[in-house]
Amino acid sequence: MIRIGIFGYGNLGKGVECAVKKNKDMELTAVFTRRDPATVKVATEGVKVLKEDELQNMKDEIDVLILCGGSATDLPEQTPKYAALYNVVDSFDTHAKIPEHFAAVDKNAKAAGKTCVISCGWDPGMFSLNRLYANCILPDGKDYTFWGKGVSQGHSDAVRRIDGVKDCRQYTCPVESALESVREGKNPELTTREKHTRECFVVAEEGADLARIENEIKTMPNYFADYDTTVHFITEEEMKKNHAGLPHGGNVIRTGKTGMNDENTHVIEYKLTLDSNPEFTGSVIAAYARAVYRLNKEGSTGCKTVFDIAPAYLSDLSSEELRAHLL
Amino acid sequence: MIRIGIFGYGNLGKGVECAVKKNKDMELTAVFTRRDPATVKVATEGVKVLKEDELQNMKDEIDVLILCGGSATDLPEQTPKYAALYNVVDSFDTHAKIPEHFAAVDKNAKAAGKTCVISCGWDPGMFSLNRLYANCILPDGKDYTFWGKGVSQGHSDAVRRIDGVKDCRQYTCPVESALESVREGKNPELTTREKHTRECFVVAEEGADLARIENEIKTMPNYFADYDTTVHFITEEEMKKNHAGLPHGGNVIRTGKTGMNDENTHVIEYKLTLDSNPEFTGSVIAAYARAVYRLNKEGSTGCKTVFDIAPAYLSDLSSEELRAHLL
Repeated sequence: MIRIGIFGYGNLGKGVECAVKKNKDMELTAVFTRRDPATVKVATEGVKVLKEDELQNMKDEIDVLILCGGSATDLPEQTPKYAALYNVVDSFDTHAKIPEHFAAVDKNAKAAGKTCVISCGWDPGMFSLNRLYANCILPDGKDYTFWGKGVSQGHSDAVRRIDGVKDCRQYTCPVESALESVREGKNPELTTREKHTRECFVVAEEGADLARIENEIKTMPNYFADYDTTVHFITEEEMKKNHAGLPHGGNVIRTGKTGMNDENTHVIEYKLTLDSNPEFTGSVIAAYARAVYRLNKEGSTGCKTVFDIAPAYLSDLSSEELRAHLL
Repeated sequence: MIRIGIFGYGNLGKGVECAVKKNKDMELTAVFTRRDPATVKVATEGVKVLKEDELQNMKDEIDVLILCGGSATDLPEQTPKYAALYNVVDSFDTHAKIPEHFAAVDKNAKAAGKTCVISCGWDPGMFSLNRLYANCILPDGKDYTFWGKGVSQGHSDAVRRIDGVKDCRQYTCPVESALESVREGKNPELTTREKHTRECFVVAEEGADLARIENEIKTMPNYFADYDTTVHFITEEEMKKNHAGLPHGGNVIRTGKTGMNDENTHVIEYKLTLDSNPEFTGSVIAAYARAVYRLNKEGSTGCKTVFDIAPAYLSDLSSEELRAHLL
């Protein structure tokens, strides 16, 4: 059994917990938290909840530690720190800072003989993998990524900060006609506005000026100004009833040409439709936790990404079984 | 430059030639053939055409040899034989015989210090990879593979063997309603007939009994009896004008459950829409030829499949560039 530790028990931590339950060769050993452990109730029976400090003492009881903190401030500190003690997996998603994060984690992991995977999930993660494969197969081509329909946490938070807003759920939606034109191999040049729309479901405070709120949302730079945005004001009950989930998904598409005269067009599409963003992300992470465990046993240490790991390492089947049943 | 040799200059050999042209770090050195070389005209200028025997003398001039013969009789003999002399890639697709083919190639490649990839293309190949990734991410789920719309060479050949048939092009078509029900996460149990239909375009000999031909097609065991088949009789001119290409494609879909109570459903779909089956297969092979070349330089020898190769090896970009631009 691969003994898993989870540090951080928010949406992603719970998603990893669900994923561990689905993998017969894994068990959840402990959840670590910065909160008072007495206030944290985990869904899996018999799992210890421990203070972060206890991570100093659990090295012999955990094979892979999954870091479920945020990319802004938690992971830049936590991943390098715990890479010196554990094999770790994180879902660091600040694209611009991946090179420095990688270097910090790699240094500590190599010194400690540990194996780590950073930026694991679906984007970055499975979407990145599909971009890479498709680029290598069709060097003469064009990439498109569409997101949604799904809840964007960052955009929902941005609306919540507007005066008079009690709650918001923001959905990012791909523009179907743009998606179709890409699928048809038409290689369109698409502006930000032409690729996605944004839809906000807002609970306003009593007596708030709805027209002002709507205008503040639609004109918010970076977040909404470059998009066609729809705003719906709803009640708290409607929010609870219709917008409790965290669905997401999207499409990675590459179109490319082959032939002595570029006469043939090919379309490669990878599409995710997810009821729960954190549970799917947790499921990808669990598969890579297995890879990390096996690579470490083989003596392959340091920091890695999804690009560096042969697919067979994700599976609990032998190479012979994979060739016989999945090839 | 990675120096490529092609053995076998049919549709696939020509597809590999087109792919080599699109990869800036590759060059086509020679085409090898069992025919009289004087009768073979290659599309790329300056490329030698040589008899198969010359493969004994070209070891120092070719880095990777691509074997473009058929899976029934050519590759079982050729791939092990030339794995003793070259790094090789083949597209062996007789699923049931992959284990023994792997063993034969592995033995010779290891003894000679060569690196090989077998069963490379899109199915087996990219479809296999996507089945593996999706199975590892969603252990509790169900796999579906749909093929088409595309030309099946084997089925076209089977119809051509019927008395009175001059030519045939057979298209395999996915049943859209079945595909939709899978995409919606409904986990349907689908019979052969419910997944695909078959459409035949037939040129009959003058005076042939069309009703008899149509009946022989529709009742042919293994090939057509289990499917709803449509037969269109057309002229030779129509065949030439409307059915000259070899389009293909398909969908690999896995749906799976997560959540403490299996309350969430996820759909992972990989979809290919290909104008030219052999040119796309050749493009996948070219990317894996690069991986084979690099792995051999690192001393990683023996037989491999797409499951055993880390995605980064397919790219001519460095790990740093991949992390910065594609992750």
